[in-house]
Amino acid sequence: MSDAAAPAPTPPGGSAGGPAYADRLRRAAVEAADSGLAGLIVTPGPDLDWLTGYRPPPTERLTALLITPGERPRLLVPALERPDAERAPSASSLSVTGWTDGQDPYAALAPLLGPKDRYGVSDNAWAQHLLGLQRACPGVSYGAFTEVMPMLRAVKDAYEVERLAAAGAAADAAYEEVTGLRFEGRQEREVAADLARLLLEHGHSQVDFTIVGSGPNAANPHHDAGERVIELGDMVVMDFGGLKDGYGSDTTRTVHVGQPTAEERKVHDVVREAQQAAFEAVRPGVACQEVDRVARQVIRSAGFGEYFIHRTGHGIGVTTHEPPYLVEGEHLPLVQGMCFSIEPGIYLPGRFGVRIEDIVVCTESGGRRLNNTAHGMRVVA
Amino acid sequence: MSDAAAPAPTPPGGSAGGPAYADRLRRAAVEAADSGLAGLIVTPGPDLDWLTGYRPPPTERLTALLITPGERPRLLVPALERPDAERAPSASSLSVTGWTDGQDPYAALAPLLGPKDRYGVSDNAWAQHLLGLQRACPGVSYGAFTEVMPMLRAVKDAYEVERLAAAGAAADAAYEEVTGLRFEGRQEREVAADLARLLLEHGHSQVDFTIVGSGPNAANPHHDAGERVIELGDMVVMDFGGLKDGYGSDTTRTVHVGQPTAEERKVHDVVREAQQAAFEAVRPGVACQEVDRVARQVIRSAGFGEYFIHRTGHGIGVTTHEPPYLVEGEHLPLVQGMCFSIEPGIYLPGRFGVRIEDIVVCTESGGRRLNNTAHGMRVVA
Repeated sequence: MSDAAAPAPTPPGGSAGGPAYADRLRRAAVEAADSGLAGLIVTPGPDLDWLTGYRPPPTERLTALLITPGERPRLLVPALERPDAERAPSASSLSVTGWTDGQDPYAALAPLLGPKDRYGVSDNAWAQHLLGLQRACPGVSYGAFTEVMPMLRAVKDAYEVERLAAAGAAADAAYEEVTGLRFEGRQEREVAADLARLLLEHGHSQVDFTIVGSGPNAANPHHDAGERVIELGDMVVMDFGGLKDGYGSDTTRTVHVGQPTAEERKVHDVVREAQQAAFEAVRPGVACQEVDRVARQVIRSAGFGEYFIHRTGHGIGVTTHEPPYLVEGEHLPLVQGMCFSIEPGIYLPGRFGVRIEDIVVCTESGGRRLNNTAHGMRVVA
Repeated sequence: MSDAAAPAPTPPGGSAGGPAYADRLRRAAVEAADSGLAGLIVTPGPDLDWLTGYRPPPTERLTALLITPGERPRLLVPALERPDAERAPSASSLSVTGWTDGQDPYAALAPLLGPKDRYGVSDNAWAQHLLGLQRACPGVSYGAFTEVMPMLRAVKDAYEVERLAAAGAAADAAYEEVTGLRFEGRQEREVAADLARLLLEHGHSQVDFTIVGSGPNAANPHHDAGERVIELGDMVVMDFGGLKDGYGSDTTRTVHVGQPTAEERKVHDVVREAQQAAFEAVRPGVACQEVDRVARQVIRSAGFGEYFIHRTGHGIGVTTHEPPYLVEGEHLPLVQGMCFSIEPGIYLPGRFGVRIEDIVVCTESGGRRLNNTAHGMRVVA
């Protein structure tokens, strides 16, 4: 029936030490108006969590927060979840309304929308719900937050940066410990299990991914971790992260079992140089795509352009993948407080791969890394 | 980066002992045509898992399976996930295409759609992706599977019913064990943790919910499990389930700490009678809403109509919540092989609540329960 969602983390303090949800709700309304939107429709997931601290599972029963500039935010929930909604940390800032099984929740929401207006909607709102709204209000138009209001959660305040730094430090500690363990002769998934355990030991509440790609598997950037037994001479890409106190970690280092060859060293050096160059390109006002271009240029100049097959980075906050995206075509300028990964890589199909990833915050004077383990290719046993 | 999704369960055997994915893909195409659709657009989640065995995490990067009657199904994936997609159990039945970061994946899908046609889309497809498609193909219309093709996964074959029965038997075993443990003096969340542990011990790979609502908390049907210490004299609603070998369990029993009062007994008897009456109403051809009405009528006649505040049931399969829904307004007829919960309840605000839930399969001759522990209100210590 219900989902055994983890309890909401204690929210950050606002100016009076209380939750900052009311501020976030106000900011969202202002930004919606600034973006030419009549309002925002927020469904369960990271947006709703960030704005209200309310964390119901997304289901076929519509839960929707309507934020309209100048009005009190309204939270429409299935009647049987109303008691939970009314206990949400931000409940005092919301008008909570229940709808009952058998009623049409879209018809309940429709009269609250301007009949010809445009609304932002959570990226991950279910198509079923969007189609229900489109049917109930044919004149209304919608844009996904990433398209129409990518900044909603992209700029972090000092509290959030501190939480991301704490998550990064925990990931660093997990890396330091895992590299002291045995690699040769063990399956990738065993090393992945070690990483998961270490993230939890260092305070993560949730592990989202523990990629361990060894030898030819390292050439697949989204390889998870399998049964392959790690051998002497393997490069091993480890990309791991999750949530600590509600904020994400995501870091990648590439290690080597025994001494690397000259070619392996060279590829690793190129990736390291690309990562450093992209990091140094970070400052307020620089377009996201520019950071991607800087990393790509280093790799291209070294002759490996065709082997860097993904974007340079993605934002991170209450999720481990969110705007801003550091990708060609993203003209959004970096803003102080944006936090994102910088993670160039080179993948030689069937042979080996290298990726180096840090989380970086854009400060007034440039980038600041939230992961701080050394970038050199560590030799493991 | 990637999501540490559990590995796909070994798929059911088809006629030759191989995976049944090819059959499911064919059936989906036929049913799409029968439903007047030009095709189906399937995104990561239970639909894609059921049809192909491919289980990428849903992300902002579009992954979409296009099923068009008479054509080979096409799977469009982010280029960096292509190696994983090509290892999907059903890969030999699919044409896999990659799109690269910086490209527009909706523009890649658009030429494959009939410019004025109607397509079914996964309920949980992200709004961001649906809006991207609507922008790329303004003449195309979409309907969520639950609306336009609710039968896609609703009718289970013998293999699937067997898996659901095994999951139900495991939930039954967990219930038998938990009722032998101490309730009085322990927090709800401690009992919930016992239930989770027992489900895992009995072969579940994943626990989705372990509701333990004691005393007044039992009057909130979606209460999770909190810090309340269970007392002598409490009614305790336990609603728990998850996935075993890829198929769901979901069962509810209401127990009592020490001897119940006459009123508590009466309310429990009414719910039990309503559950039994609804169960006996199950047979092929009966409308879903009719089963809901039968349960509701028993509760209304006993004077508790206003306290039964949710629908009577929901389908179950590779998820624990899916069509068919047993709710007023659902005219869909039951079909042999449909599997769903029957779970009436009475909730007296601030006092106590009762719910009894079994998973039931509709057979040719009527309902067959896939949960089989006794319905009597068990007294626990």
